[in-house]
Amino acid sequence: MSFYLKSKKLDFSAGNEIIAVLNEAEAESLGIQAGDRIELKWSNRSKLVVSADTSKAKVMPGRVGLFREVWRGRNIEEGDVVEVSIISRPPSIQAIKKKMLGKPLGYEEIHSIISDITQNKLSIPEITYFVASGFVKPYSKDELYYLAKSIANTGEKMDLPTKVVDKHSVGGLPGNRTTMVVIPIIASLGIYIPKTSSRAITSPAGTADTMEVLAPVSFSMKQIKEIVKKTKACLVWGGGLNIAPADDKIIKISRPLALEPYDKMIVSIMAKKVAMGVDYLVIDMPIGETTKIPNMRTANQLQKKFEWLGRKFHMKVKVIKTLAREPIGRGIGPALEARDVLRVLQQHKLRPHDLERKSIYLAGELLELKGYCRKGQGKKIAQKQLLNGAAWKKMQEIIKAQGGNYNIKSEEIATGAFRYEIHSKKSGKVVLIHDRAINEICMNLGAPHEKIAGIHTHVDWGNKVKKGDKLFTLYAASKERLQLGLAAARKNNVVFIK
Amino acid sequence: MSFYLKSKKLDFSAGNEIIAVLNEAEAESLGIQAGDRIELKWSNRSKLVVSADTSKAKVMPGRVGLFREVWRGRNIEEGDVVEVSIISRPPSIQAIKKKMLGKPLGYEEIHSIISDITQNKLSIPEITYFVASGFVKPYSKDELYYLAKSIANTGEKMDLPTKVVDKHSVGGLPGNRTTMVVIPIIASLGIYIPKTSSRAITSPAGTADTMEVLAPVSFSMKQIKEIVKKTKACLVWGGGLNIAPADDKIIKISRPLALEPYDKMIVSIMAKKVAMGVDYLVIDMPIGETTKIPNMRTANQLQKKFEWLGRKFHMKVKVIKTLAREPIGRGIGPALEARDVLRVLQQHKLRPHDLERKSIYLAGELLELKGYCRKGQGKKIAQKQLLNGAAWKKMQEIIKAQGGNYNIKSEEIATGAFRYEIHSKKSGKVVLIHDRAINEICMNLGAPHEKIAGIHTHVDWGNKVKKGDKLFTLYAASKERLQLGLAAARKNNVVFIK
Repeated sequence: MSFYLKSKKLDFSAGNEIIAVLNEAEAESLGIQAGDRIELKWSNRSKLVVSADTSKAKVMPGRVGLFREVWRGRNIEEGDVVEVSIISRPPSIQAIKKKMLGKPLGYEEIHSIISDITQNKLSIPEITYFVASGFVKPYSKDELYYLAKSIANTGEKMDLPTKVVDKHSVGGLPGNRTTMVVIPIIASLGIYIPKTSSRAITSPAGTADTMEVLAPVSFSMKQIKEIVKKTKACLVWGGGLNIAPADDKIIKISRPLALEPYDKMIVSIMAKKVAMGVDYLVIDMPIGETTKIPNMRTANQLQKKFEWLGRKFHMKVKVIKTLAREPIGRGIGPALEARDVLRVLQQHKLRPHDLERKSIYLAGELLELKGYCRKGQGKKIAQKQLLNGAAWKKMQEIIKAQGGNYNIKSEEIATGAFRYEIHSKKSGKVVLIHDRAINEICMNLGAPHEKIAGIHTHVDWGNKVKKGDKLFTLYAASKERLQLGLAAARKNNVVFIK
Repeated sequence: MSFYLKSKKLDFSAGNEIIAVLNEAEAESLGIQAGDRIELKWSNRSKLVVSADTSKAKVMPGRVGLFREVWRGRNIEEGDVVEVSIISRPPSIQAIKKKMLGKPLGYEEIHSIISDITQNKLSIPEITYFVASGFVKPYSKDELYYLAKSIANTGEKMDLPTKVVDKHSVGGLPGNRTTMVVIPIIASLGIYIPKTSSRAITSPAGTADTMEVLAPVSFSMKQIKEIVKKTKACLVWGGGLNIAPADDKIIKISRPLALEPYDKMIVSIMAKKVAMGVDYLVIDMPIGETTKIPNMRTANQLQKKFEWLGRKFHMKVKVIKTLAREPIGRGIGPALEARDVLRVLQQHKLRPHDLERKSIYLAGELLELKGYCRKGQGKKIAQKQLLNGAAWKKMQEIIKAQGGNYNIKSEEIATGAFRYEIHSKKSGKVVLIHDRAINEICMNLGAPHEKIAGIHTHVDWGNKVKKGDKLFTLYAASKERLQLGLAAARKNNVVFIK
């Protein structure tokens, strides 16, 4: 059944869904309920599946209200006639149903689900049922493979005519900015390493936020390819690209229950690596109570699945497990983390040695995995690239190619003008630096939205401190934000001394 | 963490969710994503949990856009300061998680889920996970009891100081308007039978739509109590009341997958009966391929669960199983069904005998269940109330109490002026009258939105027909709608002759 309505542009934009609004009474008489999928077709051949919403007053009968996401870039004028059809229930719902009843799915079935998620043909509850179905019966290794393959195949791809390496951190550790050191080390040796990163969601900074202090990070796939052609690398934001689009929707829906979605995480990481054409992958897996991987047993299970999937995709995968006891580096917050990175690359005397050590370690592993050198030689080569300035030179090329100021010195990076030092109230030994407390304070200080906000720590795990010693400094862009951060610092103890 | 924003009223209304809109960049820096729950508090003590949406252009930083559902009736002015807090994840999520992992839930846990659904504290994906959890491990009988009890307890209740009876059809059969005949028969004998019904969702008419042809059906609980006090009965729309509010949300979310939610259906029905204070309940369960219950085995399982739950709630329940081969009555569509009902109540010569027979049967069973008469006497008593006009007189009282025209004759009911008769193309025997084809045609004719639209059938299952005999007549309110109905009738065969 289809019918014709006149377009009405609404100056409105929603997050999760692409919305068209029907008059409530009209929708009812057509048997359409809010949340149903409908297809819109214009005579200019624009075509789109959207989620129907209804409105009593804002949209009159005979009209269909269009959210920004619908009319933007589609050359649709006020009053344009649009053919509206109720789309028949996609066959992928049968596949979801099958998995909900505990039966395994083949590639065709999984692909129909992923493809319909990508094309917006499944509603939020339907996608949720799909995610939930993994709890009725856990995904087999084959199913994980089908999922990763299908998610990679339904999005944009980076296909470089050369071998590509990558490094991925499983996350959960503040200030873990090794990526921005590893990438220039590797690229400085002539190896392709196009890196896409995420922005912070509930943390003070993601790699994309930190890199943005030095250069723009939002590019189209075409622009990224040009940057990589010039420099063999990039440090860009992956969220604006259309890589693994189904994955973004699945992640949003997996979040609320916070049920350990390890399988989903593996699929998500591997799908993106496949889409980026990665041949050699080092996975940095910090293990600790405040990271995503709480213990070694879980880490080992994940490692096996990563390696199995790697073999299926002809990708060499090495998982590096490290114990996480404190933030890596001294700065937390985009500008303060960028300063740490530049201090390492420029070999500044105040550089954080833990960040340097870990970056060299990961880069070395990547070189050995790629077969660039013999076992045991990687670290030395990586270190050399830092010492002789080749890594910093490569980073300058990347910053330049992305349109940033490539002559910047680490100490020239602007940090929050409103500062406050926290001093120790007693003497003793640092037994814990609390990641979550740091996150809470940094977000109250305004990070990552305000790039110059954050924390710089002055002590490490195991250090001896005296009463009155500096523990950490708060940075903010305004007095108000500094007050908020201070209030949070009073409530959340960061450095535990015993 | 909470913060203060200024109210901005939006002339906008969404179906499933109550929405407040934050500026996109601001939301990001606060760690809020579209779909998150936030609590709004005004200095006038209004307080509400809503779902956050984000907007780039429509809502500026420092403001929060409020959909109609938020500000309507809450005395909120443009610019009023509102305290916004991210609500901490409700503990019920832990219960949902537990059930997702296959563990049984106790009453307290189930009640926390139902109560949070009622208060809008759970998001659509979270509620979906709850519904999906029933597939990880089916609900035990105890869990079904806890669910029904909790759903009934979280909404409005009808507490009459007397014994109350009710009749419920499990649905799926077009034109099954026995309710409007059974209720006046029972009430005419002095028995309380306050009936709430639903409107059509994807069918040509619900009981509430059909009753609305004769009288208004939307009332508050207080008004309904007055109607029942006067007449011992009512025939009203239940959807506008706050009975079993959690159930409405669960139903919306169960719909898309159309996985047999029998347990959910049982819970839904029983919760509403408990809320209405029902003591004796007859359940009409039509069995057939086009109804909700496809076979006798399923029917028997459902019967046992209904009866077990009845005992837990001290409610006498009788399940009446009948085979369904064709629509009950001749009319389909609100006005045509209302005419059938009045023809039976007014004992008109054209009255549909199947509707009369089934109504008498159900009313008789209800009388015996209540103990109003001895076994085997119910039918006779019910029939007498029809024959002596007592049932029609009672219906007039109900129509009057609900504000309708209580002197209306069956033949005075307006039906669509645009008509078209469909004639048989061959001679033979009627072997099937296709329910779904009837639904499809009626909805194209404009039912239930246009009350006078629909179909009137001239033949029954098993009848012999000759080529050229009238099979059914289409009714519509406009020439355009009649054309649409005709197109559907050409595509969907209604009467199968062999």
